[in-house]
Amino acid sequence: MSKAVVLLSGGLDSATALAVARAEGFECHALSFDYGQRHRVELEAARAVAVALGAAQHVVLEIDLRQFGGSALTSATDVPKGRSMDEIGGGIPITYVPARNTIFLSLALGFAEVLDAFDIFIGANCLDYSGYPDCRPEFLASFERLANLATKAGVEGRGQFRIHAPLLQWRKDEIIGRGLELGVDYGLTWSCYDPTPASLACGECDSCRLRREAFARAGVADPARYATG
Amino acid sequence: MSKAVVLLSGGLDSATALAVARAEGFECHALSFDYGQRHRVELEAARAVAVALGAAQHVVLEIDLRQFGGSALTSATDVPKGRSMDEIGGGIPITYVPARNTIFLSLALGFAEVLDAFDIFIGANCLDYSGYPDCRPEFLASFERLANLATKAGVEGRGQFRIHAPLLQWRKDEIIGRGLELGVDYGLTWSCYDPTPASLACGECDSCRLRREAFARAGVADPARYATG
Repeated sequence: MSKAVVLLSGGLDSATALAVARAEGFECHALSFDYGQRHRVELEAARAVAVALGAAQHVVLEIDLRQFGGSALTSATDVPKGRSMDEIGGGIPITYVPARNTIFLSLALGFAEVLDAFDIFIGANCLDYSGYPDCRPEFLASFERLANLATKAGVEGRGQFRIHAPLLQWRKDEIIGRGLELGVDYGLTWSCYDPTPASLACGECDSCRLRREAFARAGVADPARYATG
Repeated sequence: MSKAVVLLSGGLDSATALAVARAEGFECHALSFDYGQRHRVELEAARAVAVALGAAQHVVLEIDLRQFGGSALTSATDVPKGRSMDEIGGGIPITYVPARNTIFLSLALGFAEVLDAFDIFIGANCLDYSGYPDCRPEFLASFERLANLATKAGVEGRGQFRIHAPLLQWRKDEIIGRGLELGVDYGLTWSCYDPTPASLACGECDSCRLRREAFARAGVADPARYATG
């Protein structure tokens, strides 16, 4: 069984990516990051998802990106609330964490090389989150080229690294549909950027709104517990 | 004054790279990593070098790469000793840390984006360390392309990221010569992979041997304190 590293945030995209990787027959080594995100509760979701979807291993790596600052996700800056789908789709939001996917993929690459794995899964999606530059196909293709130049395994020609982004061109409701077919329990996932003290999702940040819209479009009840409406 | 992020390990190459960046007129933000390396003492050297060479700031970021394993630099595996220059140059050594420069450059990129900097300096050198795939010019060029695709700053066209590797084609003795001209105090730097409990350099690991050879060729006394000879 081939090994794969799967980036797992605990949200619905990465949970679905893990389910796809398993369905494709990979032994999955899940990797999450405790990077100072205000929605650190997502790591509990990641743990539950990794177990439920049969990951062989789950590593949570600490990197305190707050030392750099620069994002509403890692600072005291308020997360935007109540934005429309058009507003969400228009430009790079302040929840953008500088170079996050580059950093996460680089660490996944190091982990993959140690495991002798050549496949890395990421739940990037370029339709809903068009605002994030590091979710675009050209970014992912560029990282794949880099991976093969960067590593001992790549240089020695023992394999070709592949960055898999199976959800890249799927709409959020398609992601949920496919995930349900593959047995993902979305009740275990966490999307909210700004959880309440009682660990309820806020319902109003961009991530909550995208999630709610997706479940509505998919015609499926959203199992998340919201503080509002 | 333009800002630059300078990767600073505490060794002689990165100290020289910092001196070059300063000489080119950059306000330098030094970045080091506490990644579980057995020669953690290099971080003390990095702190002293950052101060001595007038860095505006020095951030030491913790990432415990031991969670992945896979290198003699981050595990209990013995560091090779007493190898000849030919042996050192022949193939990728077990001190290779999987994807290390990809990881370090990615984090430098995130830091740069927060600082609104577009210049990143790395002390990579492809002559002496031909064994490391992530010190080659084609790797660095590939990372530079990636950086401009990966970031909000790159996508918005506010600047072009540049990866500077001024030492890339210099021999080790040229590095020392240039560094001395720029006022680098190599007595502050640390090269050894396997320090003794008394914080003396072992003198026999690949890094010590390259350093000693370099000082000998440069015709300059090596200020490092060695446990042997």
